[in-house]
Amino acid sequence: MEALKNLNIQSTGNAELEEALQHKIDRKTKPIGSLGQMERIAAQVGLIQQTLSPKLCKPVMLTVASDHWITDEGVSPVSTNITWQQVLNFIGGGGGIGLFCDVYGFDLYVVDAGVNYDFPEHPKLIDKKVRKGTRNFLHEHAMTDEECNQAIQNGRDVVRSFAQKGSNVVAFGEMGIGNTSPATALLSVFSSTPVETCTGPGCGLSPDGVVNKAAVLKQAIAKHGIADKPEDNLARFGGLEIATIAGGMLEAAAQRMLIVVDGFITSSAFMAAYEICSTVKEYAVFAHSSKENGHKLMLGHMKAEAIMDLDLRLGEGTGAAVAYPIIQGSVEMLNRMTTFDETEVEDTTSVKYIEK
Amino acid sequence: MEALKNLNIQSTGNAELEEALQHKIDRKTKPIGSLGQMERIAAQVGLIQQTLSPKLCKPVMLTVASDHWITDEGVSPVSTNITWQQVLNFIGGGGGIGLFCDVYGFDLYVVDAGVNYDFPEHPKLIDKKVRKGTRNFLHEHAMTDEECNQAIQNGRDVVRSFAQKGSNVVAFGEMGIGNTSPATALLSVFSSTPVETCTGPGCGLSPDGVVNKAAVLKQAIAKHGIADKPEDNLARFGGLEIATIAGGMLEAAAQRMLIVVDGFITSSAFMAAYEICSTVKEYAVFAHSSKENGHKLMLGHMKAEAIMDLDLRLGEGTGAAVAYPIIQGSVEMLNRMTTFDETEVEDTTSVKYIEK
Repeated sequence: MEALKNLNIQSTGNAELEEALQHKIDRKTKPIGSLGQMERIAAQVGLIQQTLSPKLCKPVMLTVASDHWITDEGVSPVSTNITWQQVLNFIGGGGGIGLFCDVYGFDLYVVDAGVNYDFPEHPKLIDKKVRKGTRNFLHEHAMTDEECNQAIQNGRDVVRSFAQKGSNVVAFGEMGIGNTSPATALLSVFSSTPVETCTGPGCGLSPDGVVNKAAVLKQAIAKHGIADKPEDNLARFGGLEIATIAGGMLEAAAQRMLIVVDGFITSSAFMAAYEICSTVKEYAVFAHSSKENGHKLMLGHMKAEAIMDLDLRLGEGTGAAVAYPIIQGSVEMLNRMTTFDETEVEDTTSVKYIEK
Repeated sequence: MEALKNLNIQSTGNAELEEALQHKIDRKTKPIGSLGQMERIAAQVGLIQQTLSPKLCKPVMLTVASDHWITDEGVSPVSTNITWQQVLNFIGGGGGIGLFCDVYGFDLYVVDAGVNYDFPEHPKLIDKKVRKGTRNFLHEHAMTDEECNQAIQNGRDVVRSFAQKGSNVVAFGEMGIGNTSPATALLSVFSSTPVETCTGPGCGLSPDGVVNKAAVLKQAIAKHGIADKPEDNLARFGGLEIATIAGGMLEAAAQRMLIVVDGFITSSAFMAAYEICSTVKEYAVFAHSSKENGHKLMLGHMKAEAIMDLDLRLGEGTGAAVAYPIIQGSVEMLNRMTTFDETEVEDTTSVKYIEK
């Protein structure tokens, strides 16, 4: 696919720097390893930025929106009008993500990847509409190859523009009525898990509705078959916002930005990016483990550990925003926490914690 | 016990207000229940403060320190000098808790409940020393009844003074080499769990050391027996900082303050408070599930859900500090997130999420 051709994602691996980061963390006045995942996040950010003293600059939240005509099959209990209504709500500072970006210090932009609505221009709305709604993948591919390529390219372009303006942290969220269906299909296809196991109620489907949704997804996967290339599966079963986010994540890794991954839908985009280039995982922090059926399966498949367990299932990027202070604290620890060398505290670094 | 006599903890229960809070949360532009634990925290704070629009005021972190002569039995791999050295580090803004209080906006005070050191006066150090070190409870009760009573009273006095100065959020942390031993003994005694199951490596004990620690605790419990009253078990097997924290938590509930509970040691203090008056739980948020053996058992015994899963095992109050932005975001959601009534977003509140 054209949009993936000039992608250059480098591993953050650097044995010397990793050792120096670990040494710096181990000199802090605390038992070795006692700050757990915060230590791992601090070292990860150091490796991403190739420095012992990383800085988090201009964090940006990209909430990418699209509609999905798979909703014609009764896979969502709510009206697709909510997609465009929420986009307008978000760019006005409303909704969960509008609030949490204000609370936690993200600059929020909504990217229109395929919403079924003609928006007026707005400084917080980025127009990357490929078409009005992802195609109904029960009957045809969710995107033509050209559409999927365009969506990936759009995600790359948007993220590159923020990198050029000095952002080195990008969080992703989404808005799209019906989008748990493509996310579920991608999980099933990428992890070879039966689609029934992957299917949940999304924003509020009844038990009968969940059974129908699983049947629709099963039929769609049987119809199109599973492709060899991840990007082709993305085109068959994905969504315009999912492809845009996947492209954005890949570009973020290429730009050596820290990626904050939100919930089920955003993780399905990450999974697509991961299947395209698994190195992208070195750049990612997984904010939370959501209650949506399948999210834990997804994280498990990628051997990814989430840092919060708040039963969130709102999407939009909200979990990523809420997790950000934990990342900030991790970096502050690396940069500012006192060491055995500068205090009178006895050095205990010879005492190693025994993992059970 | 004298210190518990005039304790008046009222339930936050208020069916009318609870319904009004739930209604306010359900009118937000999101699927019903989709902010999970953040919704529950928001409603909890509303009930604590008896209002639809709670405010978090002057959050204070009390890191309570003491020594423990049970360390004479080889239950800790590091020197008890670290307790006083870390107290000096913390009051100078150092250590994990000094840093995180700065990052997350807590006013930090260290309470000396029983450190084996004569500290100079310092505005950030509160002298509530009962004696230099908790007694070795392999041979005698950890505290005499008078000492335990005094420690509980001290905790109550300190917390009351902050309530009077306008704080309505108090987080607790601890510093005390050897204090996983009393915490483990209390867990075993209060939850009727074999002490071997409860015992972990603390800040870095070897596997042989863990076996020895369990044997010491088992012998101590056999020697003193299990008392009927929780405060008597606290005196037999607790620690001066643990008793001080338990008293502080009980007073915090009596003052209708939100209590943020940190890790294993702080939770053992909470467990003592809970056994004394289970209503205290209505005032508490549990910051994280630590890796220390027994912390999950402790939370399970009290049916308490932690909100982060970061593998922290530093103590000091660090986990409570890191969790605070999640609590702040929950309250902001209740107060400021947009509603279906003030936006053009279609009301979806008739769609109920089906719990699986």
